[in-house]
Amino acid sequence: MTSTDLRPTPTRTPPVTLASRLAALRGSAIRDLLTLTARDDVLSLAGGLPAADLMPRERIAAAADRALRSPAAVQYSETAGLAHLREVVAAHESGRTGRPVAPGEVVVTSGSQQALDLLARALLDPGDPVAVEDPVYVGALQVLQAAGAAVHPLPLDAEGMRVDLLAERLAAGFRPRLVHTVSSFHNPRGVTMSQERRRALAGLAERYGFLVVEDDPYGLLSFDGAPPRPLAAHGEHVVRLGSASKVLAPSLRVGWLVAPPVLAAAVERLKQSTDLCGSSLTQMITAELLADEPWFAAHVAGVRRENRGRAAALTAAVDAEFGSAVTRSTPTGGMFCWLEFADGTDTAALLPHALEHGVGYVPGNAFAVDGGTGLRSAARLCFATYPPDLLTEAVRRLARASRRRDS
Amino acid sequence: MTSTDLRPTPTRTPPVTLASRLAALRGSAIRDLLTLTARDDVLSLAGGLPAADLMPRERIAAAADRALRSPAAVQYSETAGLAHLREVVAAHESGRTGRPVAPGEVVVTSGSQQALDLLARALLDPGDPVAVEDPVYVGALQVLQAAGAAVHPLPLDAEGMRVDLLAERLAAGFRPRLVHTVSSFHNPRGVTMSQERRRALAGLAERYGFLVVEDDPYGLLSFDGAPPRPLAAHGEHVVRLGSASKVLAPSLRVGWLVAPPVLAAAVERLKQSTDLCGSSLTQMITAELLADEPWFAAHVAGVRRENRGRAAALTAAVDAEFGSAVTRSTPTGGMFCWLEFADGTDTAALLPHALEHGVGYVPGNAFAVDGGTGLRSAARLCFATYPPDLLTEAVRRLARASRRRDS
Repeated sequence: MTSTDLRPTPTRTPPVTLASRLAALRGSAIRDLLTLTARDDVLSLAGGLPAADLMPRERIAAAADRALRSPAAVQYSETAGLAHLREVVAAHESGRTGRPVAPGEVVVTSGSQQALDLLARALLDPGDPVAVEDPVYVGALQVLQAAGAAVHPLPLDAEGMRVDLLAERLAAGFRPRLVHTVSSFHNPRGVTMSQERRRALAGLAERYGFLVVEDDPYGLLSFDGAPPRPLAAHGEHVVRLGSASKVLAPSLRVGWLVAPPVLAAAVERLKQSTDLCGSSLTQMITAELLADEPWFAAHVAGVRRENRGRAAALTAAVDAEFGSAVTRSTPTGGMFCWLEFADGTDTAALLPHALEHGVGYVPGNAFAVDGGTGLRSAARLCFATYPPDLLTEAVRRLARASRRRDS
Repeated sequence: MTSTDLRPTPTRTPPVTLASRLAALRGSAIRDLLTLTARDDVLSLAGGLPAADLMPRERIAAAADRALRSPAAVQYSETAGLAHLREVVAAHESGRTGRPVAPGEVVVTSGSQQALDLLARALLDPGDPVAVEDPVYVGALQVLQAAGAAVHPLPLDAEGMRVDLLAERLAAGFRPRLVHTVSSFHNPRGVTMSQERRRALAGLAERYGFLVVEDDPYGLLSFDGAPPRPLAAHGEHVVRLGSASKVLAPSLRVGWLVAPPVLAAAVERLKQSTDLCGSSLTQMITAELLADEPWFAAHVAGVRRENRGRAAALTAAVDAEFGSAVTRSTPTGGMFCWLEFADGTDTAALLPHALEHGVGYVPGNAFAVDGGTGLRSAARLCFATYPPDLLTEAVRRLARASRRRDS
């Protein structure tokens, strides 16, 4: 079978249009970016990969072994997630939000990405207006665009989403069906929405009848050990997305959403037709680790501490190598540092040179909602993947690439 | 937060329509059926659950332990599946189809259900005509309906899909975009498409430019040890869906599709936005078990043998208890036996009585494409879930329920 041989043999029927349909499916920005991480000679700050060396492999192996003593660990599971894991997640989210979350409000998904995709499929018709932060989490943009939504960008500043601008647009008649935010330690920008803005956004959602989707994979990874109080603590029109990927391991493929039961049930029905159910094995492992609160707290504290050290190494190297040639964010949690070149350097144009020098990053434009050029001098650097010495070396390479290109 | 409190507080904005949108999302037939299996006092022949006691839990535990010595087992993986697993699946599918399958033709999915969902999303616009078998695999019907396809039923007989009727409709101008078939050991009907019809269907697909989706989770579970030659062996317009669920364990959530690279790449891009990637842990486990060919062959032979014994126990009990009051299929593989009551018993009406007597099954009407009453006297019995003695007892209960209701 040749790769494109989907054309029919000559007959009276019209030629099949599969080839043209497929060509129209747009490529994936994230995917194109992740290919940068694959080269052995490149230190990639591009991927949003948590550090595999900080993940609790031995504990996961022990939990897998324990789980597999039960036949339930190999069988199909409930579509909304194993009952026990839903209870554990409900307790965990009760602790986070400060209100009692019931297991019936929880749907376990294949990472929080699936939660977002199912939500969009449940709630959006083509043309429905939605709002996202700009720069945006690319995975959210893809989901919303795939659902045919009309995506409106909202700028960010040091306190997160410009909720004041949203309020102005709402007053002028803008009626989004949902508003997506990475409220804490934003991807890619690194900022955390202030509590005042969270309160304001939750209030607007109730007043104007839209849903806020609070995408919160990084909240627990606060360097000072105090996770920001969730948006969901401020109002009832907030669907929370959580994930085990950044605090335990991505390969568990355990994320979740917390939503009113009627919406949770709708998402569950959609999940049924998309993949029947998640893995009972990885869900049993996740339940054991999340439910062991002393262990989990100590584990997350360790990841936090290590990430803080990595962020410090990265920012120190940026300061030493670039000085006033760049401005940078000061990470307070999460996984990303945001750089802006003062001289207007086109970071997309710089990237091939950087790769030649053995370092990768994501150019700012990749996170632009409208694909415009407003972020052309910015770059996202992930500090979570490597230990400090490699981060220092990666920044040195970036500086070398930048200087070489200037000269 | 109350369960349905998604209405905005009174303002000048129009009331949000979330509640009405959610109410419109139809319930899931499979899900409703699976709730039957949850009661402890019921022997359920309703679920399509392979026997957990036949799944290789110890081997899976050992493979998990081995995989978790590598950091790759906890990290994100490639969207299309771990490269090694794609190679192993490509080799496996080369053996099945008798033609060289390249890893680039394989996308690993969260069960074959996700492969079907992604295919439908990649290929179908609302209103696009598709054809399915009637009775139909309900999971396929749900996916195609969710994609907005116009679903045309094709009846089955003892040799599988009535390809002759499809040919007539094609000659009359019917132009499906795809045709879905469970070619071997059909769910729910149990039949296997003859090689002659496979050849004819593959030829029609090439002539008229549609894709056949060969959904083949049961092919290896042929009682005589000779898996039917796949449809994909007969032509190039066939996308194959495979799964580890019935031959290893559903909790691995490893299925796959084999498609021309251009289509595989489109499915991969869609998978990226729906859940980023599958689990590297369960994919490493699956790769180890599938690649160990002598072990895998012996394991599958054992499952086959045991299933054959279970089918024999079920059919013997049906014959002993019902005699000529029912006609039944003679299973030759897979997991299902199909019953038809000679006296026109309404199996949906019988079901509550059967549950009272401690046995569950799926009424035939649940598999009707048009929701009509043509299958009202039929029932699907799964013989894979229980050992022989429990199957015998389940059939006794069914007979008792049937007699009690008659009297």
